Amino acid sequence: MYREQIKVLDCTIRDGGLINNHDFDRRFVREVYKAISASGIDYIELGYKNSKKLFSTKEYGLWKFCDDEEIKKIIDGIESNTTISIMVDVGRVELDEVKPKNESPVGMIRTASYVKDIDKAIHMANHFDEKGYETTINIMAISKDQGPELDEALHQIEEESRIKALYIVDSFGALYQEPVEQLIKRATHILKTKEVGFHGHNHQQLAFGNTIEAIIHGANYLDGTVYGIGRAAGNCPLELLLGFLKNPKFDIRPVLDLISTEFIPLRNKIEWGYIIPYAISGMMNEHPRTAMALRKSHKKEDYREFYEKMLNPEIE
Amino acid sequence: MYREQIKVLDCTIRDGGLINNHDFDRRFVREVYKAISASGIDYIELGYKNSKKLFSTKEYGLWKFCDDEEIKKIIDGIESNTTISIMVDVGRVELDEVKPKNESPVGMIRTASYVKDIDKAIHMANHFDEKGYETTINIMAISKDQGPELDEALHQIEEESRIKALYIVDSFGALYQEPVEQLIKRATHILKTKEVGFHGHNHQQLAFGNTIEAIIHGANYLDGTVYGIGRAAGNCPLELLLGFLKNPKFDIRPVLDLISTEFIPLRNKIEWGYIIPYAISGMMNEHPRTAMALRKSHKKEDYREFYEKMLNPEIE
Repeated sequence: MYREQIKVLDCTIRDGGLINNHDFDRRFVREVYKAISASGIDYIELGYKNSKKLFSTKEYGLWKFCDDEEIKKIIDGIESNTTISIMVDVGRVELDEVKPKNESPVGMIRTASYVKDIDKAIHMANHFDEKGYETTINIMAISKDQGPELDEALHQIEEESRIKALYIVDSFGALYQEPVEQLIKRATHILKTKEVGFHGHNHQQLAFGNTIEAIIHGANYLDGTVYGIGRAAGNCPLELLLGFLKNPKFDIRPVLDLISTEFIPLRNKIEWGYIIPYAISGMMNEHPRTAMALRKSHKKEDYREFYEKMLNPEIE
Repeated sequence: MYREQIKVLDCTIRDGGLINNHDFDRRFVREVYKAISASGIDYIELGYKNSKKLFSTKEYGLWKFCDDEEIKKIIDGIESNTTISIMVDVGRVELDEVKPKNESPVGMIRTASYVKDIDKAIHMANHFDEKGYETTINIMAISKDQGPELDEALHQIEEESRIKALYIVDSFGALYQEPVEQLIKRATHILKTKEVGFHGHNHQQLAFGNTIEAIIHGANYLDGTVYGIGRAAGNCPLELLLGFLKNPKFDIRPVLDLISTEFIPLRNKIEWGYIIPYAISGMMNEHPRTAMALRKSHKKEDYREFYEKMLNPEIE
């Protein structure tokens, strides 16, 4: 038995891009797009749309900017029913540079926002909606923001926005099942005319379990990435999610092939997955940036010193 | 807030032994014992007690047999409040060779059994109980055995045995949260005078999440292993479990040190963890033995062929 309303979004290239400055080459992105399309996944997210006034094209790869022309090169000649999504951060995109949907290969724009920026996020999402795109708002770092201001933000989104789905994003990989249950229930209770989504991080090996938990309590928009690639410990492995969902429209085989041929070699070049400093960040409900810096240093396996530092951060 | 009744058992050497023929050297086992003791873990399981008539000491290491004299060499001179556990399989141990508890360093004996062998398991557990040991029965491969015969076995255990805890063992890493919830509820409902335990396998990255689920529904005996070591994808990572449990008697630091110094190097020599063929075994609710054989072949990364074979096993 499956729930027809469930939509799966693959954000392999977008969240994976956070570990390589969004610098996947075109061949690789085409391979991912081909496999995701063949697997029948609903959406694929290729990166961020950032202003080139804020970020240098010398420092970052193509998928930090997601020019329509570049996306067209990726999809050219590949049969697909998968909608292309891009992500925008509050304050980092030039709204005027986003063309109307009927002139663009993009179908959905997701706005990532903290609770405090929700007014801006709603304004942006409504702007994209007016241009014809499907839209979502993704509330980041929600494990740090579970107070009454979250309810206020959810009410505002319900009343003022025209988004398709509101995502709960566990940026720090800090949530256990019970907080996930509570957050999804709060969101579905308030957002009567919108769908609720979940985006997990795998710092404590809970991204998949928490995604199942979100499904149980009514979330219908689900993020995954191939072989769990993504910042720090990565995300919910798409292949596990497909194994769990019973909808016959999905086919796991192209994703298995993609892991064999592309992701096993890639994992030898860039690092993600279950790594102790990320687990510690998750336990402590902190951004993984300190752990990510540690992994680039000669102290990368000095877990105990890292643990003590996270417990007792020096006053700077 | 923590639940005082919760007992954590580290089965690093026992379940880890399933990937190296129980051949950890004494220095390594002493390091593990030292760290587990310093972390305040309640139990440590060092291996199996198997009959030397059935298994050759040339083929298997020390921890397939767990002679009392060998255990004494491990614990000698190390301060510890951790109880030593060993595991026995139905039909593989000479009961007469197990000395009375007051002559042995072992404090607990766990009997692993399938549902069909439960009469034998109860007989064995009662035998060990009479010799003075704490006892448990661990029902293996429970994802394949959820019919009415399971209830019958649970009733029999409640009425005929004197075990401390009955463990639900997800040998195939096939359970999702909802079946875990149902199984723990069934067990706690029937076993009014015993504790219920949970032992997860990590084929689908759910060992930790499922252990939390088991805790939520009343399981108090919990298995973990350092860095998740164990057969195939391994077990619930002990360090994550300690991070989740709030009982101040536990200290994660010695486990973090142990991972840094011993388990990172070990992982380069023997393989466990998130590996696609194990994930596929879990999805299909099958024993990982076919996947383990694949990992030793030149087709170790041919996931799609493996998937098709698991879907359509040839008639032999």
